[in-house]
Amino acid sequence: MRFDHDTLAQRVRFGSGAAAANLAAEVASLGVSRLMVIAAEAERELAARVAAGLPVAHWHHEVAMHVPVGVARRAREQAATHRVDALVSVGGGSTTGLAKAVALTTGLPIVAVPTTYAGSEATNVWGLTENARKTTGVDPRVLPRTIVYDAALMLTLPVELSVASGLNALAHCVDSLWAPRTDPINQALAGEGIRALHTGLPAVATDPGDLDGREHALYGAYLAAVAFASAGSGLHHKICHVLGGMFDLPHAQTHAVVLPHVLAFNAPAAPDARRRIATAFDAESATKGLAQLRTRLHAPKALRDYGMTESGIGPAAEAIVAAAPPGNPTPVTLDNITELLHQAWEGAEPR
Amino acid sequence: MRFDHDTLAQRVRFGSGAAAANLAAEVASLGVSRLMVIAAEAERELAARVAAGLPVAHWHHEVAMHVPVGVARRAREQAATHRVDALVSVGGGSTTGLAKAVALTTGLPIVAVPTTYAGSEATNVWGLTENARKTTGVDPRVLPRTIVYDAALMLTLPVELSVASGLNALAHCVDSLWAPRTDPINQALAGEGIRALHTGLPAVATDPGDLDGREHALYGAYLAAVAFASAGSGLHHKICHVLGGMFDLPHAQTHAVVLPHVLAFNAPAAPDARRRIATAFDAESATKGLAQLRTRLHAPKALRDYGMTESGIGPAAEAIVAAAPPGNPTPVTLDNITELLHQAWEGAEPR
Repeated sequence: MRFDHDTLAQRVRFGSGAAAANLAAEVASLGVSRLMVIAAEAERELAARVAAGLPVAHWHHEVAMHVPVGVARRAREQAATHRVDALVSVGGGSTTGLAKAVALTTGLPIVAVPTTYAGSEATNVWGLTENARKTTGVDPRVLPRTIVYDAALMLTLPVELSVASGLNALAHCVDSLWAPRTDPINQALAGEGIRALHTGLPAVATDPGDLDGREHALYGAYLAAVAFASAGSGLHHKICHVLGGMFDLPHAQTHAVVLPHVLAFNAPAAPDARRRIATAFDAESATKGLAQLRTRLHAPKALRDYGMTESGIGPAAEAIVAAAPPGNPTPVTLDNITELLHQAWEGAEPR
Repeated sequence: MRFDHDTLAQRVRFGSGAAAANLAAEVASLGVSRLMVIAAEAERELAARVAAGLPVAHWHHEVAMHVPVGVARRAREQAATHRVDALVSVGGGSTTGLAKAVALTTGLPIVAVPTTYAGSEATNVWGLTENARKTTGVDPRVLPRTIVYDAALMLTLPVELSVASGLNALAHCVDSLWAPRTDPINQALAGEGIRALHTGLPAVATDPGDLDGREHALYGAYLAAVAFASAGSGLHHKICHVLGGMFDLPHAQTHAVVLPHVLAFNAPAAPDARRRIATAFDAESATKGLAQLRTRLHAPKALRDYGMTESGIGPAAEAIVAAAPPGNPTPVTLDNITELLHQAWEGAEPR
């Protein structure tokens, strides 16, 4: 047992139907009086409701995926013009990301009110895009001071998107167990995240209005983000990154298809992770637990359904072997990665 | 699911035999150059070894249990006289506590190198004693910036003390599951702490030189402190506090005797906690798991063996009912607490 672990300071206020009250309490606690509320057009009304009655100096609705530098620059200018003293983000990963871009240069505190299971609100990672190139970094200033979680805000998130986003969070948990900076602390949080997602996602898939299921899914997504930010990217995320870049595959579906294959690939060489996953799934084995969950969620099975061609397997395998993280439980070779990709491509049972 | 949770920022550097190297790395990382090393006389040599080669402006060896205000005042004076810019504590709870007392008024960062399973290094709680009265408080300044955990420093800790201190940590975990500020996050950490202590303590009891066992016990004690500081004192700690104050009972032994009775008392009304404890013990039930562990550790059984008289049960029960925390799973009455105390007093099987 040898590790270095940094626990990041953050407050979580978790309460369904309590977003407005918890946000107001947090604004009072921070002693701030000139808020900039960041929310995409689609969440304009929601943001107005959550921040009703608060001292908002500027409502900002220009939000775009992957935080383009121009969008970030204009948001920073507005923050300066309106002399705001805190940022409130209401939305998914792109909205939180824009608040982080402003905090990165201004040091303003963020209170994040997430509306998806993306998890950005629980990390100190920022990202900016310029000329289709994404730059990311880690900075303590971008970690939201407080997260206000309200599962009732997710009740209208469509089932398909909820499941895809939830399986993405599940992949964060599983991959944390063998990622480069994995340690007992982030493993414990990851295991708890798997447990919560395993409780929440099937309930949400059956009834998107199931508040208890939504709470568990949201709580699991939070733990997934904390564990993943701490442990770093493991083999699963390297594979998905390569596939996404090469074949322009949809993000969440790629994760959903690839995860069982990476688990089957690593499980024989990772007894602790295997046990922890099986326990969290309350299943006979890690792989069976994941398979059962995927069946209940009607998770996508084959990369070829999303436009990847068989001829892409070779080049993808080469790129993955080159990018594979050190210390992966099962040593990575061109042969075994090619086989893994072929299974994921055709939708075979993971072996 | 409704809670507010504050995660405290702290770095943990965990490595057996690596205390000196990790402490040096941390001093470099903090950019400090005038250390005050605090260590009791008994740990003078150990501290000299761990801090060898570092820029120590002052070695401080006046340490006393419960941090008397006079001891704290003299340590603060020395910190000022020597213009120190960081505190390094090498020792158990009293040593960490003295460093906290200095940090409380000076804001100096602490790097803690613990040598017991007391856990103070992982909390933002300080304590000072004046005229036999202990004052405690919570302050962000007293939370050590970094903990350097080295299980090899514990190899000489006697078995009996290790077991008692480990059972005290176990009580922190169990009591966290129903304490006033219990929440899913500190419950997850508490469950993981139980698991680690369950692995480590029997190994240490069998062979105090078992480094793997020492690592698990130390890691479990860390999690216990994090969970307990977050969740607050539950019924178990209120009972032990009352008994300790009334009958001058030994701290660790009191915890060891009382814990199974509180678990048996609360378990029927706390299904989630019960399940979590049973899983962590890998046992059929929470109470059986604890009983098996206690047998393996030859844990103390009866309060009467430590000087408590039967006539004390009545007054103690009254004081406990008055101090019982709100929201305890099983409602507390004079009758059921009297029965609990009688069982603990005579060493009966917990019911």
